[in-house]
Amino acid sequence: MKMMIAIVQDKDSPRLAHNLVKAGVRATKLASTGGFLHAGNTTFIIGAENEKVEDVKEIIRNSCRSREQVVTPMSPMGSQLESYIPYPVSVQVGGATLFILDIEEFAQF
Amino acid sequence: MKMMIAIVQDKDSPRLAHNLVKAGVRATKLASTGGFLHAGNTTFIIGAENEKVEDVKEIIRNSCRSREQVVTPMSPMGSQLESYIPYPVSVQVGGATLFILDIEEFAQF
Amino acid sequence: MKMMIAIVQDKDSPRLAHNLVKAGVRATKLASTGGFLHAGNTTFIIGAENEKVEDVKEIIRNSCRSREQVVTPMSPMGSQLESYIPYPVSVQVGGATLFILDIEEFAQF
Ligand code: NI
Ligand code: NI
Ligand code: NI
Repeated sequence: MKMMIAIVQDKDSPRLAHNLVKAGVRATKLASTGGFLHAGNTTFIIGAENEKVEDVKEIIRNSCRSREQVVTPMSPMGSQLESYIPYPVSVQVGGATLFILDIEEFAQF
Repeated sequence: MKMMIAIVQDKDSPRLAHNLVKAGVRATKLASTGGFLHAGNTTFIIGAENEKVEDVKEIIRNSCRSREQVVTPMSPMGSQLESYIPYPVSVQVGGATLFILDIEEFAQF
Repeated sequence: MKMMIAIVQDKDSPRLAHNLVKAGVRATKLASTGGFLHAGNTTFIIGAENEKVEDVKEIIRNSCRSREQVVTPMSPMGSQLESYIPYPVSVQVGGATLFILDIEEFAQF
């Protein structure tokens, strides 16, 4: 059995939680901040059987991987509206940091 | 030395904290949600000497183990009071998930 | 690669975060309570390359180590002001508890 500690952006957290439940993977969530990722983030503690580890990695990758997202910025405050032409820009979102640790013993009471 | 990570129901958390202190076991608590247990839960990080691990497991088991609790539900909202006969039902409460990991090094500053 | 879990007093947390960033060390913070230290505390999860571990220990020691601090207590509530002579006293602040664990695998998505 392995303990997988995944730190993901808050915006990806509900999708990851949903996809873990769907795959029957047990996890608990801790609110965390700063550090690995710029925005607020969530730390998942996941207990996974050895033969499930690759599946869980795939779920984390698919739920959270760093990707470009096209957004159209709002008109800047106080700009001359007639001279402001909004155009879509690409920003980086998502990403996950994953630690996998060996568990010496696992128990449920 | 081992790191023991215990995820327990919020309602069992004060009792576990009390019993750990009584046994001279150092622990810190993190608020956590969902996953292993249905209700809100608390994650304990416990540092235990190797020879204390079985004692700590016993403390967690005694403080948190899954058990039946008999409750008498309240009269349902809007029910006809003369026709509602409350009767006690048994619900499952408690439970703990425990990971034990080996610590390579432990330090206090 | 190692996972370093450091539990420090809230008052030392911003200094530690600042010093880790300055050294290019990745960390995430979790709010935690009680246990290892008397006051509110913060749990840092730090991912460190093996050759960085001693540097990170030094950063934690320098940012958080237990030390004496001289404070002048306020006049006690309801005391006779003319008879109360405030004098500086020394109190213990800071301190850190550090666990270092081996990481089997580390990934970023
Ligand atoms: Ni779905
Ligand atoms: Ni007692
Ligand atoms: Ni500075």
